[in-house]
Amino acid sequence: MIVVMEAGASEEQIQGVIDRLVMLNFSVHRSTGVIHTVLGGVGPEGDLSPDDLQVMPGVKECHRVTSPYKLAARAFKPEGTVVEFPNGVRIGGPEVVVAAGPCSVESEPQIQSIAASVAKAGAKLIRAGAFKPRSSPYSFQGLGEQGLIMLREAANAHGLLVVSEVMDHTQIGLLEQYVDLLQVGARNMQNYNLLRELGRSSKPVLLKRGIAATIEELLLSAEYILSGGNYRVILCERGIRTFETYTRNTMDLAAIPVVKKLSHLPIMADPSHGTGRRDKVLPMARAAVAAGADGLLVEVHPDPDRALSDGAQSLYPDQFETLMAQLRIIAPAVDRTL
Amino acid sequence: MIVVMEAGASEEQIQGVIDRLVMLNFSVHRSTGVIHTVLGGVGPEGDLSPDDLQVMPGVKECHRVTSPYKLAARAFKPEGTVVEFPNGVRIGGPEVVVAAGPCSVESEPQIQSIAASVAKAGAKLIRAGAFKPRSSPYSFQGLGEQGLIMLREAANAHGLLVVSEVMDHTQIGLLEQYVDLLQVGARNMQNYNLLRELGRSSKPVLLKRGIAATIEELLLSAEYILSGGNYRVILCERGIRTFETYTRNTMDLAAIPVVKKLSHLPIMADPSHGTGRRDKVLPMARAAVAAGADGLLVEVHPDPDRALSDGAQSLYPDQFETLMAQLRIIAPAVDRTL
Amino acid sequence: MIVVMEAGASEEQIQGVIDRLVMLNFSVHRSTGVIHTVLGGVGPEGDLSPDDLQVMPGVKECHRVTSPYKLAARAFKPEGTVVEFPNGVRIGGPEVVVAAGPCSVESEPQIQSIAASVAKAGAKLIRAGAFKPRSSPYSFQGLGEQGLIMLREAANAHGLLVVSEVMDHTQIGLLEQYVDLLQVGARNMQNYNLLRELGRSSKPVLLKRGIAATIEELLLSAEYILSGGNYRVILCERGIRTFETYTRNTMDLAAIPVVKKLSHLPIMADPSHGTGRRDKVLPMARAAVAAGADGLLVEVHPDPDRALSDGAQSLYPDQFETLMAQLRIIAPAVDRTL
Amino acid sequence: MIVVMEAGASEEQIQGVIDRLVMLNFSVHRSTGVIHTVLGGVGPEGDLSPDDLQVMPGVKECHRVTSPYKLAARAFKPEGTVVEFPNGVRIGGPEVVVAAGPCSVESEPQIQSIAASVAKAGAKLIRAGAFKPRSSPYSFQGLGEQGLIMLREAANAHGLLVVSEVMDHTQIGLLEQYVDLLQVGARNMQNYNLLRELGRSSKPVLLKRGIAATIEELLLSAEYILSGGNYRVILCERGIRTFETYTRNTMDLAAIPVVKKLSHLPIMADPSHGTGRRDKVLPMARAAVAAGADGLLVEVHPDPDRALSDGAQSLYPDQFETLMAQLRIIAPAVDRTL
Repeated sequence: MIVVMEAGASEEQIQGVIDRLVMLNFSVHRSTGVIHTVLGGVGPEGDLSPDDLQVMPGVKECHRVTSPYKLAARAFKPEGTVVEFPNGVRIGGPEVVVAAGPCSVESEPQIQSIAASVAKAGAKLIRAGAFKPRSSPYSFQGLGEQGLIMLREAANAHGLLVVSEVMDHTQIGLLEQYVDLLQVGARNMQNYNLLRELGRSSKPVLLKRGIAATIEELLLSAEYILSGGNYRVILCERGIRTFETYTRNTMDLAAIPVVKKLSHLPIMADPSHGTGRRDKVLPMARAAVAAGADGLLVEVHPDPDRALSDGAQSLYPDQFETLMAQLRIIAPAVDRTL
Repeated sequence: MIVVMEAGASEEQIQGVIDRLVMLNFSVHRSTGVIHTVLGGVGPEGDLSPDDLQVMPGVKECHRVTSPYKLAARAFKPEGTVVEFPNGVRIGGPEVVVAAGPCSVESEPQIQSIAASVAKAGAKLIRAGAFKPRSSPYSFQGLGEQGLIMLREAANAHGLLVVSEVMDHTQIGLLEQYVDLLQVGARNMQNYNLLRELGRSSKPVLLKRGIAATIEELLLSAEYILSGGNYRVILCERGIRTFETYTRNTMDLAAIPVVKKLSHLPIMADPSHGTGRRDKVLPMARAAVAAGADGLLVEVHPDPDRALSDGAQSLYPDQFETLMAQLRIIAPAVDRTL
Repeated sequence: MIVVMEAGASEEQIQGVIDRLVMLNFSVHRSTGVIHTVLGGVGPEGDLSPDDLQVMPGVKECHRVTSPYKLAARAFKPEGTVVEFPNGVRIGGPEVVVAAGPCSVESEPQIQSIAASVAKAGAKLIRAGAFKPRSSPYSFQGLGEQGLIMLREAANAHGLLVVSEVMDHTQIGLLEQYVDLLQVGARNMQNYNLLRELGRSSKPVLLKRGIAATIEELLLSAEYILSGGNYRVILCERGIRTFETYTRNTMDLAAIPVVKKLSHLPIMADPSHGTGRRDKVLPMARAAVAAGADGLLVEVHPDPDRALSDGAQSLYPDQFETLMAQLRIIAPAVDRTL
Repeated sequence: MIVVMEAGASEEQIQGVIDRLVMLNFSVHRSTGVIHTVLGGVGPEGDLSPDDLQVMPGVKECHRVTSPYKLAARAFKPEGTVVEFPNGVRIGGPEVVVAAGPCSVESEPQIQSIAASVAKAGAKLIRAGAFKPRSSPYSFQGLGEQGLIMLREAANAHGLLVVSEVMDHTQIGLLEQYVDLLQVGARNMQNYNLLRELGRSSKPVLLKRGIAATIEELLLSAEYILSGGNYRVILCERGIRTFETYTRNTMDLAAIPVVKKLSHLPIMADPSHGTGRRDKVLPMARAAVAAGADGLLVEVHPDPDRALSDGAQSLYPDQFETLMAQLRIIAPAVDRTL
């Protein structure tokens, strides 16, 4: 913690800050400059917010020095995390991995049909929801366990892994029976009880960035899972909320290289939720790979115009094939394969 | 649903939209204008997003006409909801009601001391957390049930009601034993499983606006609770996230008159979380009352410099007294008492 | 400038930063901590951005210590600036000063009528535009000099001062002949050639905050005017752009106490542009005064439904009277008169 | 204009809206639905804002149907605009065009050196500022005409075109003597007097998106230039301001396909200002091309650590070469060359 005192701070004010830091078990180094006195404190920054010091009399500014996350930091594992699945698929390695599928499992024919087409086009995971967080209580809320069963069967039939969303810590046990990768949705990025329980799961976790979450907050949420002992966490950029309303969200693709610098965790991108409109998915999927994403989550539906949810952002199967072909051209520019 | 077709939309494209609406059980009214054909559809808008039609060929724009929330709408209860507590305190009536207290219950002396001082200054509820959602897993997470017991005792000793946060649907039963008003924090505003269960609670709910939630989304979250049968919901504006970082959040005080127009539910304001800095709490608390808030949530701590959480935004007890005196001057300007 | 080096920064990297600072005429103080080496640099921070050091190898973080503005800082004039006009009206003193009038001067009867009614209700300045910055080239662009003449006459007839917008440095000479306070609109807050020329004007300047401007940027724009020798600058909060679209902008009322702390300049609030809707103007005007604003800018029109611009946010004259009565109740809560 | 009346709107209220539209020379089509009456108005939408009708009694919602811009709309020129320069370079055609160079012209050796290296790497334009809009009045403001002379000579020596910023309408004449493409900076995107004068220039204009500008506002600003008769306008996405502060701005790359759909104008991307940090420029430059940008603006400096402005975001010359090689791999994925 670095505390910069005001130009005219009194000796008493300076001592007040030192006393407070010492009380909190910090060791303090004082540096008296020509204009400002600067205090450097080393100690347990966990519970001390810079704001707490900033409101003290005589304090001009206060900055945290160490990152509030430890296990998620790049320094903790400089070589980068690769999440490997039993079938050998690896996320975070040289291959760009694509997960594709409908927003929700709707029926057996639907999920079988889409599994076949995304597998053929080169996807390694099928994505689909059985429990849907919907902003309206009157919207379709998912098929529940029935949907998970259909999803697992479709995946098995086509050699795919399964990623699906867990909404609540009480659902973890059920989901673990059917899926390979547990997805935490954007609205749950700060559901700490859920994160804490996922720290005890044997399954890897795909953690989506909240629509108003900073990159630091995303890494802190990952820290909850890591600190519970589950080191297989994959992050996901899926758009943040800004004043621009033409697209549903604004994809912050710069978050990809930023996360790569700050953390060792893999990061995927979700251009379907990131844009909300089918005709913007291809450009943003290509852009995400060009920016260095380790993988993509893409919504594809056999008949988007009749989808029970998110039809507007789902690709037609042939659009998905086109996309995969384009990505194969781009991947070598970032030394990746696909 | 109003669908505006492109200037040059073909008859086939127009028919495509009509067919889709009819398939979804809408009755459609077609209005052929000089430039644009406009389709008006009346039907079950619940699952149909304007985006779904907007991506259809020939469609220029699509607008929802009816509000996606029903029970939360002003039209459902034009006279306004007043939430009354067993001791006669009423939120949403002519009196501006203030809840005050520390961020967290830390100890019995702390909570007793603050209960005494806020009650004396005129607060009607004590607010304090026993379960704390903290962005870092290494921060103080609250005293749990032990804290609730202390909180209840302090409240009883000073004739106060208790408001405290529920983080998860599995905690509802426990909280109901100790508190009068169940608070849903900003990070949980879209935790739908929690909201759904609260719809079955016998206790009123204080629902805080998420930092990136629109007013419409806040009302939709309230709808989850109302649609479960719990009509005693109080909303709370506590700041949204913007590019301005001088204050922790940007309080959107215009949300107060906006909510008053759109909904019958009472709305409070939380200037402590809304600003994050003690010296901004008084101005924004006064402003919230001047803007028409039905009540306030204010953090007050007997010794903010030693608070285990959120000390920077907690008032000293004498500042809280000053605030109450200022609010008593302002209330008559909006035909309220305090 | 405080530079925090990475935990494992090499001696060569540390020396690289020191050399760079020395080259830029900074004197450097090195403080070697247990984990991080911290460098404190004192020197001409004008052209050195923290970003410039932050990208150097081995640098973890870099923070500016001194404010980039000097003349606008509270320290430069601790007692606060009061802008006094020839007729004795003072902005920044104990009285809350209200400027009211239509968006644009439209005709002589219109401006005479509104001048009469706002003067009667207690406004001290009339506000109206003769040059209008409109986002569409096809919208009404103002009456120009003809409008200024009408405006001046109406003001004189009713003992009012005049505030009107200058869009461009080439218009300053013309405006100075007719107005008492030169307004810089939000879109021009960073039109530096305009600001620089206003630094040489003999008239005070009302500087509106840009819709995406931070408080620091607002103060830096004020610095341009102050550094040219014109010390009579009044700031104005008028809403920032956020994701919430129910109101046109989100008023950041916390900016009022923040500016009061950082700067000696008076600050007004514009609830008409801040909300964009007539029925939100009263609540937000009251809130602004409760938050400590030195004055208000309010749009009032004799016949808002026929206004050539911004009719939706203009008050009816009798609403303005009601507002003034409410403000007279609130002002004493902040030790002000009106 | 589509006006949706409230469910219970009275006949008098409906007639009030009709009268107002008729007064404004709209022809009105009334459609009486089961629940809502909907009015469709065709007429001069220029000066009528949806807000003006929205505040009328009985009105539920109001939507503009026609775009407020005409000449910038895709419909006006479905085949897309290609801006061609005298030397045959074409922006908006199949080739992705790159402009590169330092933030500011600093000296003759600097600009000659960088011109040589960017030309060799494949840039077609050199970019550099002679007039710099700086947020602090104490920062380096550019070399003025002297800088333009150096810039022109360096460009000529290496077969490059010149793009440089015009800050003010009074500078247009001077700039036209030296540059091939007049750049309007983000801060001036709504400087309407400047835009209007540029409508009369014989040089093409590069119009940067303001940091808080919606895509619609960007197109409206282009409309100002087009409506003056200058049809050679190129848009530029350079990042918007959001709550995420790790990068200076958040690049909204989805704006590229959105603009391509709404407008016929070419669009470039500026990853240097869009990110503010050198190590993020390559990923975002690649991403912009993958998203379909017609060109790039990239800051390159022979010695970024000694740059007088924006050094932190300037590439080293060899990084720029690497980038160009990567872009040549990506371009075919979007059917482009480079």
